[in-house]
Amino acid sequence: MSEKLTTRAEDYSRWYNELVVRADLAEQSGVRGCMVIKPYGYAIWEKMRDYLDARFKETGHQNAYFPIFIPKSYFSKEAHHVDGFAKECAVVTHYRLKNAEDGSGIVVDPDAKLEEELIVRPTSETIIWDTYRRWIQSYRDLPILVNQWANVVRWEMRTRLFLRTAEFLWQEGHTAHATREEAIAEAQKMLDVYAEFAENIMAVPVIKGHKTENERFAGAEDTYCIEAMMQDGKALQAGTSHFLGQNFAKAFDVKYADKDNNMSYVWATSWGVSTRLMGALIMTHSDDNGLVLPPALAPIEVVMVPIYKNKEQYDILCKKMSETAAALRAEGISVKIDDDDSQKPGWKFHEYELKGVPVRLVLGPKDLEKDQYEVARRDTMTKEFMPMENIVESVKNLLNDIQKNLYNKALALRTERTYKVNTWEEFLDVINVKCGFALAPWDGTTETEEKIKELTKATIRCIPLDSVEEDGVDMLTGKPSKRRVVFAKAY
Amino acid sequence: MSEKLTTRAEDYSRWYNELVVRADLAEQSGVRGCMVIKPYGYAIWEKMRDYLDARFKETGHQNAYFPIFIPKSYFSKEAHHVDGFAKECAVVTHYRLKNAEDGSGIVVDPDAKLEEELIVRPTSETIIWDTYRRWIQSYRDLPILVNQWANVVRWEMRTRLFLRTAEFLWQEGHTAHATREEAIAEAQKMLDVYAEFAENIMAVPVIKGHKTENERFAGAEDTYCIEAMMQDGKALQAGTSHFLGQNFAKAFDVKYADKDNNMSYVWATSWGVSTRLMGALIMTHSDDNGLVLPPALAPIEVVMVPIYKNKEQYDILCKKMSETAAALRAEGISVKIDDDDSQKPGWKFHEYELKGVPVRLVLGPKDLEKDQYEVARRDTMTKEFMPMENIVESVKNLLNDIQKNLYNKALALRTERTYKVNTWEEFLDVINVKCGFALAPWDGTTETEEKIKELTKATIRCIPLDSVEEDGVDMLTGKPSKRRVVFAKAY
Repeated sequence: MSEKLTTRAEDYSRWYNELVVRADLAEQSGVRGCMVIKPYGYAIWEKMRDYLDARFKETGHQNAYFPIFIPKSYFSKEAHHVDGFAKECAVVTHYRLKNAEDGSGIVVDPDAKLEEELIVRPTSETIIWDTYRRWIQSYRDLPILVNQWANVVRWEMRTRLFLRTAEFLWQEGHTAHATREEAIAEAQKMLDVYAEFAENIMAVPVIKGHKTENERFAGAEDTYCIEAMMQDGKALQAGTSHFLGQNFAKAFDVKYADKDNNMSYVWATSWGVSTRLMGALIMTHSDDNGLVLPPALAPIEVVMVPIYKNKEQYDILCKKMSETAAALRAEGISVKIDDDDSQKPGWKFHEYELKGVPVRLVLGPKDLEKDQYEVARRDTMTKEFMPMENIVESVKNLLNDIQKNLYNKALALRTERTYKVNTWEEFLDVINVKCGFALAPWDGTTETEEKIKELTKATIRCIPLDSVEEDGVDMLTGKPSKRRVVFAKAY
Repeated sequence: MSEKLTTRAEDYSRWYNELVVRADLAEQSGVRGCMVIKPYGYAIWEKMRDYLDARFKETGHQNAYFPIFIPKSYFSKEAHHVDGFAKECAVVTHYRLKNAEDGSGIVVDPDAKLEEELIVRPTSETIIWDTYRRWIQSYRDLPILVNQWANVVRWEMRTRLFLRTAEFLWQEGHTAHATREEAIAEAQKMLDVYAEFAENIMAVPVIKGHKTENERFAGAEDTYCIEAMMQDGKALQAGTSHFLGQNFAKAFDVKYADKDNNMSYVWATSWGVSTRLMGALIMTHSDDNGLVLPPALAPIEVVMVPIYKNKEQYDILCKKMSETAAALRAEGISVKIDDDDSQKPGWKFHEYELKGVPVRLVLGPKDLEKDQYEVARRDTMTKEFMPMENIVESVKNLLNDIQKNLYNKALALRTERTYKVNTWEEFLDVINVKCGFALAPWDGTTETEEKIKELTKATIRCIPLDSVEEDGVDMLTGKPSKRRVVFAKAY
């Protein structure tokens, strides 16, 4: 049995790093900052992807695929975008290798230099809007509702598995509309899709809000986001949806003719979530025993383990478990029977706890006599006996219960650690001592926002959509404040 | 209505290029050699991916994800692989852009030069085997059955949409085994999966075979392939599965301890299919009216079009069609009702023919009176009336029929254009005049193979798995031949 995880109390950051590796989710590769997503981690990501993809299609979107490379000059076309994205990028400068003349290995062929460097996409607005110019002539071509599942690269200097890696997987929706109102409605709709997914599938409660001008996507007129609280009280941005105005349409000259043949620039949105969600999932629910997964995203929802002394018992138990497994699978529940004879039950229990399998069914000869399973739930680490008779119904209810419990637990934590503050002292106490979200008045200026970040590392996570107007006084500057915003330290 | 497609007889190559663009499958992007896969084309690729992915999982494989970048030095580790792949590659040399000091735009920051260049993966054996070294210690860790869906880049000088592009999408399976026999069995099993997919889902008949040493994957001990014949008689390699021996295990020092604690190098396979399959699909079935899709891969299997003179008729017809559509969808058939009032039926017919929709149901007031649909099938371009009463059953049978007919038609073409030849004259006639596959004797040497390629551009597509020993005489050299192989010009 492997040694124990570092606990969250000991070192939250180390606990996370260890857990990701030990639960077989991901690991560092031989390439700086790039991760390998291992099969178990990828299976969770696949479930996320499939849920979201289905929701995108239900809301009228189609998938497409655009090039991974973007000519350098494309970035310069949108003034804000270039500052935000044309910085820490992987730059392709050559297209050929050759054998070194001195026989020392392979070298870059200096004759194969590209005329214009290509950037490995950090995000695809530019290449996509260069394409949309060819797709859009008239109002009949609108709206365009397209999504792409892809890898992107941002040359991060300090990386952490899932949370911040040089290469990551994501989806990016890019839509084009005839009117401002339609584009804004689209950006809001996709924010709702993200929030619903986070809450119902990931069991992660989120706050929907606007980013401040300072934290906005480079090239957006408005950035909507969902923000979640991790168990250490820090915030994690779990998804963003941008209203891009006509910025990219103007940069790439994309106009449409309306019914009266008047030409107008097209309105745009973009929206995305990434493998960062894996980090949010892990940090929201997991504990010192390992991963805790909501049933909706667990590659294995139920693991079954036999306890036996001899081959005869083993055969009888496995037969019974196979019947139960078949009945559970018929209800769409993913089940694994671990009948590996070379490992002890205790080792298996530990292993599936580490991997976050929501429900464990154990069957021994005595259980069989009593027509019952021993049922353990991962979220509370409690056990009980359940009659075999209606085990399928019981497990279904239990899985629903776990899904809800995880959400409620995370919501309770966030509620407990979210504080209304009015003074600078209260604010410092929340940010530095209590470690949570501070609902604080703000004078609305970028200057104050940056000053606070400089002093405390806390940033404005969002201006909540449901915030109410409330006259107040900025806790730092004493200037008037119109509404409270969410401050926190963030991942 | 847009102008007619170039016909296949006029110019096969131009017909293909036009069709891909006109049927909204893909187009060139602003980046040399990189394509944009448009929503309709991507929907077909998604269906291919989903079918294959399910088959991979049924055969015990799991998905994972490995970095897009490969350090240059990794390529040098396997002697044959470096020659095959470390050539026309996209090379990342820098990781930052900055504003030019003269204000002229953005430039590559010379201070941000990578110590070791990174190659955008042309295939992932090297990065994956570098990873497997960490995953494999003992026989308990084997087999590893992993697949990756990813984009790869090969800097092709002459590109064609789907058939040969700088960036393309693919899957690459990479497996690790304890024994030679197990690895060979895996490579063969995956070839069978590909062949079954090609024939049953794509309706493309394929020949399973071995590649000659000369045409083998760089780093493989044996390359299995499936080869298909396009309508112009040229061959297209539709998938490959490689037995890699211990080459990559040795290059990356991957050993396992067996039960007696003896250390041995691990045995490997890799196998892949790509968006090239889209090219095979298009070129096998389509005709001068546009795309022809097998129902199993058609994003829309049935399109329904109303023919009406006034709003009252329109409403009645649409209501009836909605009922039929619901009944068809309940059977898992994808249906689109095109009730767009701004386009004429003739325009719609043309459009869905171009897009290859297998079945069209038309309903007019007279049809409604007679309780019938006018049913057109895309493969034969024929029409008939079918009673409404059992329209669901009729359409299901028709779709099955179309799927089979497309396969049989393609098989008949291949049979017709495959010739046993024994002399050089016969060979030249098949390759240059009849344009087909030549089943010809070959003396087994790379020298002869290359000479033939030089003289005729025909290559050995494969040594069929079902070929029989047959004493013969090489048609070029007169040396003895053991069996016939398949020669053809190829895409």
